[in-house]
Amino acid sequence: MAARYEVEIGFGDCDPAQLVFYPNYFRWFDAACWSLLIGLGLTRDAMNQRYGIMGTPLVEAKITFAAPARDGDRLVIESWVPRVGRRSFDVVHRALKDGAVVAEGQEVRVWTAQDPADPTLLTGRDIPDDVRPLLAGVTAPPPDVSP
Amino acid sequence: MAARYEVEIGFGDCDPAQLVFYPNYFRWFDAACWSLLIGLGLTRDAMNQRYGIMGTPLVEAKITFAAPARDGDRLVIESWVPRVGRRSFDVVHRALKDGAVVAEGQEVRVWTAQDPADPTLLTGRDIPDDVRPLLAGVTAPPPDVSP
Amino acid sequence: MAARYEVEIGFGDCDPAQLVFYPNYFRWFDAACWSLLIGLGLTRDAMNQRYGIMGTPLVEAKITFAAPARDGDRLVIESWVPRVGRRSFDVVHRALKDGAVVAEGQEVRVWTAQDPADPTLLTGRDIPDDVRPLLAGVTAPPPDVSP
Amino acid sequence: MAARYEVEIGFGDCDPAQLVFYPNYFRWFDAACWSLLIGLGLTRDAMNQRYGIMGTPLVEAKITFAAPARDGDRLVIESWVPRVGRRSFDVVHRALKDGAVVAEGQEVRVWTAQDPADPTLLTGRDIPDDVRPLLAGVTAPPPDVSP
Repeated sequence: MAARYEVEIGFGDCDPAQLVFYPNYFRWFDAACWSLLIGLGLTRDAMNQRYGIMGTPLVEAKITFAAPARDGDRLVIESWVPRVGRRSFDVVHRALKDGAVVAEGQEVRVWTAQDPADPTLLTGRDIPDDVRPLLAGVTAPPPDVSP
Repeated sequence: MAARYEVEIGFGDCDPAQLVFYPNYFRWFDAACWSLLIGLGLTRDAMNQRYGIMGTPLVEAKITFAAPARDGDRLVIESWVPRVGRRSFDVVHRALKDGAVVAEGQEVRVWTAQDPADPTLLTGRDIPDDVRPLLAGVTAPPPDVSP
Repeated sequence: MAARYEVEIGFGDCDPAQLVFYPNYFRWFDAACWSLLIGLGLTRDAMNQRYGIMGTPLVEAKITFAAPARDGDRLVIESWVPRVGRRSFDVVHRALKDGAVVAEGQEVRVWTAQDPADPTLLTGRDIPDDVRPLLAGVTAPPPDVSP
Repeated sequence: MAARYEVEIGFGDCDPAQLVFYPNYFRWFDAACWSLLIGLGLTRDAMNQRYGIMGTPLVEAKITFAAPARDGDRLVIESWVPRVGRRSFDVVHRALKDGAVVAEGQEVRVWTAQDPADPTLLTGRDIPDDVRPLLAGVTAPPPDVSP
C-alpha cells in the first residue's frame, strides 16, 4: 500500500507569481518519504540505533509538473517504493489536488552510514534483510478506474 | 559564457545529518536561473512590461548529487542554456565546491503568460525573437583541462 | 475562541543541532495567522475582492522560547487576537508540545492596501467595521487548571 | 566594529504580496550571527572542539519592520553585540537597503552544551573568559551623520 502525506499549501509556500515556489515540492517529498519510513517503524532514532545509519541521503531527484497549485490548495502526496536495490531504493511521489495530478517525482536514496567525526564522510551500506521487504511492501496505488 | 552564482552555505541550510537539506539546491538553482536572466536584462519587471509574461515556470527539474556539502562551504553554481525551444528552454546548473562538482541539475522552463484575474491560468507563449539569441548565448563553460 | 493550527515537525525543519531551525517558528506563526483569518472567512481572495486590501503585513514580531523541539514532535499552535486597533491588530501564538509551552510569540499586523503598479507602495487602511468584531472574537484560551 | 552580512533578495524569498516573506529576515539574522561568530574564529567546529558547546540557541528574538523589500533588492545587515552576560548575549541586526533601515531585530542567545545522547537536553554554560571580550568587541556602528 502506498503511503499518504497531506499538505495544506500556505501563503509563505508561494512566490510572487502567486503559485507554489517549486523547491517546496521537494521539501514535501522529503517529508513524505520520512512519513513513509516512520510508518514502517524506521524513525531516525530507530535507523541510528538499530542499524547504525544516519539516514538515506539522495543521489538523484526529479520532478515533472502537470498543473499549478497555490495557497489554500490541499495536496495529497502518495508515495511508494518501486525498486529496492542492494544499497539504494527509489521512492515515487505523486502530488494530487482534488484527485488530479499536480506533480510527480522520484528520489533515489542510499542506505548510508556517517563517520561520527566527519559528517561529510558517507558510506553506503547494504539494506538490511529485515528492512528490504518492508520497503518493497510500499507499492503503487491501484490505477484510478473511476469514470 | 555560462552564468555564475555564488552560495555560502549556512547553518540553517543544513539538516540534522549536518549536510545541506537537499531541496535547498533547487532554491539555489532557481536563484541561479534568475541571476542568469537578470544578467541578460530579463528582470521580472522587464519580462512583465516588455513581453507581458509573468516568468518562466518549470515543467521539469532534476538533480544528481556527487558529493556532500555542509555549512561553511562555498559553492559556485555555473548555469547555461543548452536548448532554446519554441516556448521552452533548458537550464543546466552545476554546483562546484573548490572546483569539484557537488551536484548537477537541469530545469525545463516555459515562457508563460498568466491571467491577471486567476494566477493558476497559465499560457505558454513563443519565446520572442530578441530573447532567443540571448538565452542561446549562455553556453556551457569550456571543459576543465587542468592536470 | 482561540484558533488552532497543527504542525508535524519534519527532518528538514531542523538544523545541525538536531532541533528546529528557529525561523521556522515564524513560518508556522504566519501559517497559523492565515488559518485564523481563513477561519473567519478572510481568505486572501476575500480580503482582496471585498475590501481591496492585499493582506496584513507585519510591523513587529517577537518570540520567546521555553523548550526545544525536534523532528517527530507535533506542535499545536493556539492563536488569538488580544488587540484590535484602528488599522492594526495583534496576534498571539502559543506553540505547545504535549500540552507544554515550547514557544510563544506575537505579531503586530496592519490592514494594508497595495499599489497595483508598485508592490512596495503600501498604505494602512482602517479595519472595516464588519471585520473588527470578527478579529476581536478570537480570544485567548481559558487558563489550564488541570492538576 | 559591527559585522556585515550581505543578502541579495531572490524571487523565492518573496511571497504572493511580492515582498519578502517575513520569516526570511530571521533566516538572514541567523546567518548574519554565524557570520559574526565565524569572523571571531568561532566556527561551529571550533565551538564544539574548543569549548564543548553545540552552538548558541535562542531564548528570544524580535523584529521591527520599517520599509518593504522585494526581489532584486540588496540588503546589508549590520550586526553587533550590545550585551554579554554570564551565559547569554544579545545580538542586534539592522538590515539596510540603499543605506535606509528596512528592519531591525534582536536575538538573545545562550552559550549551550548539548547531551550527546539526547539533542533536546540543553545546558547553559558560562561564556568562556577568552570569548567574552571577543563578543563585546563587536560594537554598534557609529551614528550616520551624513546630511
